Amino acid sequence: MPVETTEILISTRGNDSIEDLTPRIEEILSLSKLRSGLVHVFVPGSTAAVTTVEYEPGLVEDLTEAVRRWSPREMAYRHNRIDDNGHSHIRAALLGPSLTIPFSEHRLLLGTWQQAVLIDSDVRPRRRKVIIQLIGE
Amino acid sequence: MPVETTEILISTRGNDSIEDLTPRIEEILSLSKLRSGLVHVFVPGSTAAVTTVEYEPGLVEDLTEAVRRWSPREMAYRHNRIDDNGHSHIRAALLGPSLTIPFSEHRLLLGTWQQAVLIDSDVRPRRRKVIIQLIGE
Amino acid sequence: MPVETTEILISTRGNDSIEDLTPRIEEILSLSKLRSGLVHVFVPGSTAAVTTVEYEPGLVEDLTEAVRRWSPREMAYRHNRIDDNGHSHIRAALLGPSLTIPFSEHRLLLGTWQQAVLIDSDVRPRRRKVIIQLIGE
Repeated sequence: MPVETTEILISTRGNDSIEDLTPRIEEILSLSKLRSGLVHVFVPGSTAAVTTVEYEPGLVEDLTEAVRRWSPREMAYRHNRIDDNGHSHIRAALLGPSLTIPFSEHRLLLGTWQQAVLIDSDVRPRRRKVIIQLIGE
Repeated sequence: MPVETTEILISTRGNDSIEDLTPRIEEILSLSKLRSGLVHVFVPGSTAAVTTVEYEPGLVEDLTEAVRRWSPREMAYRHNRIDDNGHSHIRAALLGPSLTIPFSEHRLLLGTWQQAVLIDSDVRPRRRKVIIQLIGE
Repeated sequence: MPVETTEILISTRGNDSIEDLTPRIEEILSLSKLRSGLVHVFVPGSTAAVTTVEYEPGLVEDLTEAVRRWSPREMAYRHNRIDDNGHSHIRAALLGPSLTIPFSEHRLLLGTWQQAVLIDSDVRPRRRKVIIQLIGE
């Protein structure tokens, strides 16, 4: 089958907490009939984003801090006239909701110290759905 | 047919104005024979970018402001020796020209308050072409 | 749906140097049997990123400077307790490791002044592998 769409559910602490998605993606790939193609990782919602980073505790904290610096919470956001998470939306729009990773011979082509991560910038814990779509042959 | 490539044309005001592409993408998807796969949104040109955001007027202004803050116009850009839009290029390179959204059972898998947007950072109004490519089955 | 996966090797100077990948991608596309689809560009590793920019010498320097400004080297990174390149990781996570470009009738749909680039933010020269994956028909 050339397209396989799976949803994964992840509980986050919000506030720019960062979760490693790689083991879940690897598991989905190991169950797939596809040999080569791309894995598309997409987070529905506009206060979370995906990217890759070395999932090392110090660096994970560095990235949380950087995200906050790029769009400080204490600035004036017009969105906060109707909600309290203007900064969350801007952080998510900057990093983006989609990430694509190639695979070949059933193997994800990430670097050794490179993990696919979800960054949840909302202001409270959330139960997040992430779409993992495999396309290939 | 597994690949369908469409161009859409959009008039922008430039200067980090933000246009909602979602209705146009939904329309293209509704006319497609594909049931599941990915929608690839790509803007040719190096002074515009795509991402997702909740398309709410206050937040749209917040994002325009954030983009300007990330690469202020008044800084010294070497590109301005030959043109006047160094800041436009840097803003576009930061957010990136490509966005991928999954669809399944003819339905785009965006969040309820998540829209696909074009951010035009050039210094004048532009007529922009955006490529919408569907790949799937 | 056919998938073609190729690796290209590029020597970089590191330190946010920027390399034009476009001629290599064009060459791979010219040898492909696929007529339409997408080119997926992915850099394995967590200290380099890909995006598009007008590959003009002044602007290339402007982008290097901007990347440094978004995540200054002289800040305190927790990652530097075990390595010396915390800033490199954060820069790469911001811009992201993946870029997707559509092609149609054997032609890459980039803008005229838009090139696909690799930004290597590591602190030393590197020999980088970049995965170029074509998916289409």
